[in-house]
Amino acid sequence: MAQQHLDPTDPMAGPVTGDALAGYLRAQATEFLRALRLHRETGGGTANGSGPHGSGSPADPVDAARALRRAVRRISGSLHTFRPLLDSDWSESMRPELAWLSGTLAMEHAYSARLERLLLALHRLSGAVFPVQTAGATAGTARPGRSGPPAPPAAPDRGNLTVGAAKAGALLERQLTLARTRAHSTALQALGSSRFHAVADNIAVLASEVPLVPDATTIRLHPHTVAAQDRLTDAVTALPLVTAGHPYNAEALIHGLAPDPAPHPQDTPWHQVRLLLRLHRYAREVLQGPNAPVDVRLLAAGQALDRHRDASEAAAAAAQAARTPRIAPATAYALGVLHADQRHEVEAARFAFQQAWQKQTVGTP
Amino acid sequence: MAQQHLDPTDPMAGPVTGDALAGYLRAQATEFLRALRLHRETGGGTANGSGPHGSGSPADPVDAARALRRAVRRISGSLHTFRPLLDSDWSESMRPELAWLSGTLAMEHAYSARLERLLLALHRLSGAVFPVQTAGATAGTARPGRSGPPAPPAAPDRGNLTVGAAKAGALLERQLTLARTRAHSTALQALGSSRFHAVADNIAVLASEVPLVPDATTIRLHPHTVAAQDRLTDAVTALPLVTAGHPYNAEALIHGLAPDPAPHPQDTPWHQVRLLLRLHRYAREVLQGPNAPVDVRLLAAGQALDRHRDASEAAAAAAQAARTPRIAPATAYALGVLHADQRHEVEAARFAFQQAWQKQTVGTP
Repeated sequence: MAQQHLDPTDPMAGPVTGDALAGYLRAQATEFLRALRLHRETGGGTANGSGPHGSGSPADPVDAARALRRAVRRISGSLHTFRPLLDSDWSESMRPELAWLSGTLAMEHAYSARLERLLLALHRLSGAVFPVQTAGATAGTARPGRSGPPAPPAAPDRGNLTVGAAKAGALLERQLTLARTRAHSTALQALGSSRFHAVADNIAVLASEVPLVPDATTIRLHPHTVAAQDRLTDAVTALPLVTAGHPYNAEALIHGLAPDPAPHPQDTPWHQVRLLLRLHRYAREVLQGPNAPVDVRLLAAGQALDRHRDASEAAAAAAQAARTPRIAPATAYALGVLHADQRHEVEAARFAFQQAWQKQTVGTP
Repeated sequence: MAQQHLDPTDPMAGPVTGDALAGYLRAQATEFLRALRLHRETGGGTANGSGPHGSGSPADPVDAARALRRAVRRISGSLHTFRPLLDSDWSESMRPELAWLSGTLAMEHAYSARLERLLLALHRLSGAVFPVQTAGATAGTARPGRSGPPAPPAAPDRGNLTVGAAKAGALLERQLTLARTRAHSTALQALGSSRFHAVADNIAVLASEVPLVPDATTIRLHPHTVAAQDRLTDAVTALPLVTAGHPYNAEALIHGLAPDPAPHPQDTPWHQVRLLLRLHRYAREVLQGPNAPVDVRLLAAGQALDRHRDASEAAAAAAQAARTPRIAPATAYALGVLHADQRHEVEAARFAFQQAWQKQTVGTP
């Protein structure tokens, strides 16, 4: 795969064509099969939460699950961006299945990370400085979030939380642990279903034989990566970046107490940009190959949007928990503070994205 | 008073001495007496809230009360900064009395402004965009805050608030209106007390004859204004300005849920700088006279610290209201969101101060 080492911006380099796409898809499919084997071997399918997480085992079900999600996202994204190079019947049938699998596999991790983010925030808001171990971090595919230090295997300490913060923490833990357990069961059922086996069989075929259109090896990838980048740029242009670049613009908490049950439609275009940025990043991977240098500014922009999404969903979870019937006022108060805190995280993430993107635009050759 | 037009940084200018201080104190004492007369004429002493506020009368009791507070603060500050130039027995006996008067006169306005700030925030958080009229804005010395547009005389509209936001607003209105009414009565009682008459008599004397030390007309003011500036600079140096200059540092909400009943000791040094900045500003007024150009950067720094103080106290009022027994969880939740919102205002104000101060330091000749 000589084209993997080509610089696509080098006008002297040969054109990168469907060959590179086939190579990329084969590699991702192989990675998927490896992760799936690992996931089965390491008991990723046991729901009792007594997995080997934290024991230092190299065959970590958390890592296996992450590798699975990672490969599925990349295959799915490449099918989207480079659609014209692939057999259309095959890719059209695969895409909804990959979206289903990707969504199903992501939920357990999302609930787990959301709970950890909220408990860490509660501790920060209570003036505590020690790391938090979420109660269920050993179960299934749970994994410590980016934001925290590696958590020692200790029980959560609510010693220096107020009653309200402690009760809010317990309520969130109950609700999100239940949601995570359900997501875990759903993922297990999915991985045992005939629907999954059909997808896995398709990916196994992909590992050896990519269904390209007949002339794919003469079709250049570059216009498609440019189109992906254009879709990203257009979506970014539509974002309120001027506002986001003014610190403390107080935009993210507007409608924080609005009667509207879907509280934050303002987040949607940012979530959309997050997905387009990911597609752009995967398209670059296809073009540049696995040894391409990491674009740190693109990485920073993507991390800001991940943080935006995580904080947005954590804020919604706090608001949702506050609607639990018969909670104490102190619990509701703590959840209100927590909601607002996470909405400000949303605003902070937009600012961080704006800063990263500005460098991006200036710095791109 | 020729020295009023001198530039104190001009090395060719004659020295500014105790004469200028005497002139400044006479002018402020005269202003105090004028405001006091106006306050009595305009019924600033009637507590029934049916004053002429909003009628366009030039003799507004709100303006009169503000002018009173303004003059008292300036006299008090000058006695502090230029202590060695004034008869020590006289100034030592006056200073606690002026502090008492200044504090007593400030309370009613403070409660009124706090309520307006919190109701505006509740409306902002509910996605409403119309201006708010606080229910008691016509009473006594109440006055619309800086932040809002001039409020039309309309009843507060809670039409598009959620139940929680509306209930939180009603609770805050009840509690802060009660506090304001009490402060109004206290101020009235103070203005009718023999203690006040003694202060007013002293200020009346000051309007014609300032008790300077014998050689005051040969003592230069400059070292004392420099000392006031040094005290300010030292206090600013001790502030966490590097942190404050990083947007979204999330410092202000730390301890937002802490068990400590005095929730925000971190605000104290900022409040202290606010007072020192005011003393510095008054010392400049003494030195440069009433026609000196306004230092817009000093003004911006001072406004940021006013906003810091206002938001800090509004956040505390929201937290305090949440401790009301038997409130609904939805009310408590809204108060939690409101508290966190105001703590982020605190953080935003620190950022604004840091930005203004940085310009300050760079720009000062």
